[in-house]
Amino acid sequence: MAIQSVVLKTIYVGTFIHSVSLAELQVLKRSAVAVDESGKILLVEHPVEASMLEMWAKEAGTTIVEAGPGQFFFPGLIDTHIHASQYPNSGIFGKSTLLDWLNTYTFPLEASLAKPSKAKRVYSRCVARTLSHGTTTAAYYATRDVTSTNILATTCHTAGQRAFVGRCCMDCMAPDYYRDTDAATSLADTIKCAEFCAKLDPKGELVQSIITPRFAPSCSRELMRDLGDFMAQSGLLCQTHISENKGEIELVASLFPECKNYATVYDRAGLLSEKTVLAHAVHLTDDEIALVKMRGSKISHCPVSNAALTSGAAKVRRLLDEGIVVGLGTDVSGGYSPSVLEAARQATMTSRFVSLTEGEEAKLSVEEALYLATRGGAEVLGLQKTVGAFEVGMEWDALLVGCTFVPDEEECDEDEDLLQAKQAVGGGMTPVDLFGWENWEEMVAKWLYSGDDRNVLKVWVKGRKVHEKPA
Amino acid sequence: MAIQSVVLKTIYVGTFIHSVSLAELQVLKRSAVAVDESGKILLVEHPVEASMLEMWAKEAGTTIVEAGPGQFFFPGLIDTHIHASQYPNSGIFGKSTLLDWLNTYTFPLEASLAKPSKAKRVYSRCVARTLSHGTTTAAYYATRDVTSTNILATTCHTAGQRAFVGRCCMDCMAPDYYRDTDAATSLADTIKCAEFCAKLDPKGELVQSIITPRFAPSCSRELMRDLGDFMAQSGLLCQTHISENKGEIELVASLFPECKNYATVYDRAGLLSEKTVLAHAVHLTDDEIALVKMRGSKISHCPVSNAALTSGAAKVRRLLDEGIVVGLGTDVSGGYSPSVLEAARQATMTSRFVSLTEGEEAKLSVEEALYLATRGGAEVLGLQKTVGAFEVGMEWDALLVGCTFVPDEEECDEDEDLLQAKQAVGGGMTPVDLFGWENWEEMVAKWLYSGDDRNVLKVWVKGRKVHEKPA
Repeated sequence: MAIQSVVLKTIYVGTFIHSVSLAELQVLKRSAVAVDESGKILLVEHPVEASMLEMWAKEAGTTIVEAGPGQFFFPGLIDTHIHASQYPNSGIFGKSTLLDWLNTYTFPLEASLAKPSKAKRVYSRCVARTLSHGTTTAAYYATRDVTSTNILATTCHTAGQRAFVGRCCMDCMAPDYYRDTDAATSLADTIKCAEFCAKLDPKGELVQSIITPRFAPSCSRELMRDLGDFMAQSGLLCQTHISENKGEIELVASLFPECKNYATVYDRAGLLSEKTVLAHAVHLTDDEIALVKMRGSKISHCPVSNAALTSGAAKVRRLLDEGIVVGLGTDVSGGYSPSVLEAARQATMTSRFVSLTEGEEAKLSVEEALYLATRGGAEVLGLQKTVGAFEVGMEWDALLVGCTFVPDEEECDEDEDLLQAKQAVGGGMTPVDLFGWENWEEMVAKWLYSGDDRNVLKVWVKGRKVHEKPA
Repeated sequence: MAIQSVVLKTIYVGTFIHSVSLAELQVLKRSAVAVDESGKILLVEHPVEASMLEMWAKEAGTTIVEAGPGQFFFPGLIDTHIHASQYPNSGIFGKSTLLDWLNTYTFPLEASLAKPSKAKRVYSRCVARTLSHGTTTAAYYATRDVTSTNILATTCHTAGQRAFVGRCCMDCMAPDYYRDTDAATSLADTIKCAEFCAKLDPKGELVQSIITPRFAPSCSRELMRDLGDFMAQSGLLCQTHISENKGEIELVASLFPECKNYATVYDRAGLLSEKTVLAHAVHLTDDEIALVKMRGSKISHCPVSNAALTSGAAKVRRLLDEGIVVGLGTDVSGGYSPSVLEAARQATMTSRFVSLTEGEEAKLSVEEALYLATRGGAEVLGLQKTVGAFEVGMEWDALLVGCTFVPDEEECDEDEDLLQAKQAVGGGMTPVDLFGWENWEEMVAKWLYSGDDRNVLKVWVKGRKVHEKPA
């Protein structure tokens, strides 16, 4: 058998839940997933025979990791849009909207991270926090500072988080204290960051550079064209913002009168391709949707941020129906939470506001929100063959999720051991209460709507354990 | 001095933050609040002199409770609408809307709580959870079962939570297995529950009964009139639902063709008074707003529930501008969270969706959301002279809130003691990260947008400590 001819490093045993399509979560009970030294999934056995487990247990060098009763393995969550440099401002946005928010809260903080010790402090906390929430892959914005951006790349690499790290390119319309000198310098600094990542992680197995024009208003035409050329040459992904806020859209129209819409600004610069991640896309026109679709660009939906900054509500169902690939972004600190689970939760809430005008079919289900948080995000970042589900050939980016069992005094009277066993079920004290009568579907819904980092008991990336809930 | 002539039981020392108006939070640094044996606030000293603290420390029988650096006292949170009986269904609602949600998820669970052991298990968990989130006062719906409802009252009384506990009156349009036999029985059962509470807590200092016609569609005209009469005789508060969902509004119009709108149905029965709490009020017409205002009835805004069940977005600014009193409700399990802080957070988010059509002024600020969670809720429940702020004559219903300080390695190199001191600041591991440069206003915003029960270090009701965060 195949499993005997290769080195199995770890065998995960228990219940596995993952998306098999946008609408369907699959629950694999009493199953096993075998992972090799490099973190690759070699085998998904469903259901697994006791005899097989016994055989594996005897193999030298093989570790068996079992999910406890009431616990389950879930694919790692993917954050397709997060500004690590803004993490300390989480929750601080007042009643601002995008353009005044940038000047009031955002640029001063980002600029201050040019101090390496401050960058280290902020980035190490941000990465630790996102890992604790189960973010196994993140597409990060750093700042416009090269050293600071490289500190973020190193931080992710050391912590073992899969990451795309982008230096913010911005040679226009930003304050003097926080702007690239000119297009040439901006490109040169971007290349420096790309070279740093290529040295840090030559095969790009964990950390890669991502080309990051901040957004059209803060980039000159020349800079965007240069970045478009660099994208074509380098094969790197590109991330930017699009159509987040109506004031921003008017600004883009006035800055780029030669373009019929916002998407065209990026397209003319060669920045719209199947390797492009567009954050927000709240107000895309039909023409823009058609263009994004034609170019195969991906969209990062950021519901928490869009609500907080009064940007509006992206019509995710419409995008999905068009066949456009959508993932979720926390958009810290436009979004106030570093949790992809919170983004998934609020994606369902935002979809309900959208449905008030667009009809019932606009609503996102639990299954769909969790698809966006895993497989959707993976495809946005070109990782659909690597992560997002439990399939042979993918890598082991996963969470162990546990909930809390509510003690039952009646049973306690009958059998003290039983009570203790049931109390031990799950993850200790977590915000998700199980009464014991829930089915798996209900348990997953409870996790989505009530869960937080306390339900994330362990986190692995590429087979390596990168987080464990503090005892 | 006054403080020497009375018995001070406890003196709280540190920073106190509370609402002084809808728009303004007051931060009282280096202050003291002295509380007597009965839990009443005798003195608010701002700022407090060191000599005074020394004098108090010497008084026999007086305890001093100090907030640590970076911690603050905040008034207890008030949940003006929560179904304790639905707590186990938190997060389980699928894509349903109100009327199908009731039949699919809600009635079966509520009916099952007629089993006392199950009621005890559910209610004790619900009360423990709401206390842990800092809910010092709650207006609860129980079920239509008398015994089960009384179990909830006892649970609150024992746990020390201020509570209004209502038996659900429902003699119409509910399934056979979960309906009051007729109006007379429904009234008689309601009176039984009221008598139970009067015996449990004769002065109504902590737990009171509340008259609870479920909502118009599940009550006959006769029942509502009987309850209106009982309300006038008993002086008890009344709580019900109004104008939550468009399907419900159409149903009410068809059931009560003699009434020009939903609010009139309650008004004709004598159920609209200054002692009435109306949950939701999402779609009130101008006529209804005028009627509610004229009667002095109060409104419980339930943003999480209204988003989750696609009910719509209540226009809170409009209600406030009319001078109508508004508080917040978690509406578990229409709402998926038992946290009033989450309700406050989502109230600001919902207000941003409202502002997309109603204009910027519809947005609720941090200060306003926290006012609704404290003083607003207190006034909704007729407790505005008793709780909601730190004022002489009010009672000590309060939280001690703490956040987490992010370690600074640079300082660590310089001074290990300093780092340890800073790490100790706040509340241990919480979801709110402070970097040390935040002002109080920013700290409160971070708490509102990122905080959860882990930031609630201690909770007091009427001077009694009713919850402490597990170590």
